[in-house]
Amino acid sequence: MSIEAKLAEMNLTLPPPSPKGGVYQSMLVVGDQALFSGHVPVLPDGSMLTGRVGGEVDLEAAQVAARQVGLCILATAKDNLGSLDRIKRVVKLFGMVNCTSDFKQHPQVINGCSELFRDLWGEDLGVGVRSAVGMGSLPGDVTVEIEGAFQV
Amino acid sequence: MSIEAKLAEMNLTLPPPSPKGGVYQSMLVVGDQALFSGHVPVLPDGSMLTGRVGGEVDLEAAQVAARQVGLCILATAKDNLGSLDRIKRVVKLFGMVNCTSDFKQHPQVINGCSELFRDLWGEDLGVGVRSAVGMGSLPGDVTVEIEGAFQV
Amino acid sequence: MSIEAKLAEMNLTLPPPSPKGGVYQSMLVVGDQALFSGHVPVLPDGSMLTGRVGGEVDLEAAQVAARQVGLCILATAKDNLGSLDRIKRVVKLFGMVNCTSDFKQHPQVINGCSELFRDLWGEDLGVGVRSAVGMGSLPGDVTVEIEGAFQV
Repeated sequence: MSIEAKLAEMNLTLPPPSPKGGVYQSMLVVGDQALFSGHVPVLPDGSMLTGRVGGEVDLEAAQVAARQVGLCILATAKDNLGSLDRIKRVVKLFGMVNCTSDFKQHPQVINGCSELFRDLWGEDLGVGVRSAVGMGSLPGDVTVEIEGAFQV
Repeated sequence: MSIEAKLAEMNLTLPPPSPKGGVYQSMLVVGDQALFSGHVPVLPDGSMLTGRVGGEVDLEAAQVAARQVGLCILATAKDNLGSLDRIKRVVKLFGMVNCTSDFKQHPQVINGCSELFRDLWGEDLGVGVRSAVGMGSLPGDVTVEIEGAFQV
Repeated sequence: MSIEAKLAEMNLTLPPPSPKGGVYQSMLVVGDQALFSGHVPVLPDGSMLTGRVGGEVDLEAAQVAARQVGLCILATAKDNLGSLDRIKRVVKLFGMVNCTSDFKQHPQVINGCSELFRDLWGEDLGVGVRSAVGMGSLPGDVTVEIEGAFQV
């Protein structure tokens, strides 16, 4: 089944590609790597999921934010590559969590994105290397930011 | 026009290559990628631009620091590659800002480096993927640190 | 001398491969790059080196933690590649330190890992590009986390 068909089967609708907030390209293909910039959780209405995990945002809401980042990455990929079916595998995610200094469950947060990609491409091709860490702050106080690479 | 000539036209002088502060190489070419280590804003006299954005450092000074990091990256590239004209494009920047936990304008800070590279190589080849995020702290309390990759 | 023999000569014993704490692969080979996920300092008994540098953890203990991360990375590499002798060089380390906001010696901390790799593979092949920076927090309050890439 194509990834596009699988998205439909999972009742997932991609948000519009996120507007750029600075001097960068959202995705760049170099050789067989489609590198993507740090993406943040933008909702279809253009608003963003903000706030600090461990403070005003709880773990479950942070996982939802990470999943939304995943959908935004897919929207960028479709916009840049033409079709998600050009993606051969997930290579890497670098997951950055906006959290309090005593927060310890960063991997569980970023799983919100990783599980989306795993469900789409499977345990092997949908899961790459990853770090999940806590930042001092993130642009616009977003809850999660994720950058990484697909193989195309 | 060559990048070296463009630098002269823009009245830009590269600082000396930064001294290394640990066990690493400042640049490493692997295949067609010239990876560069995290660079910090070293001035020609060897001093560094330090302090936390949102605290004792304002946005404009942080942008100047990011631009200085860009010049230091170029100095490393010239030292390692022989000529900046060997660089085919900017592939990636990972921009790290030393800022207070309530700071939100990380992309505007890192634009100080991105705009320098864009002005040198143009909107397409001078602009790659990027993240711009807030760290808990940076070595020596520098204001900005940036790592990334060029294609050569 | 093979790296496996050198490990024995240095009286180093690799810990068991670290258990995964989320949806990711510990190592992924893409082309000639063996990318590894963020590794943390797991001891042979499964416990982890935790705490914040500049607070309850001092510089020397943090360097020991970084060296332990290096051993855990080697354990992952041996588990995934079959032999450490398949590694041609160290390409990149991204060293993340769990520290107080006024800590400034991140490079000295991450040297604990970099010096291990340098001693194993030598000044040229054992030393790649690197950043060493301070995070807001790390999973499980570990003291150091390092991700990166080898060339195979």
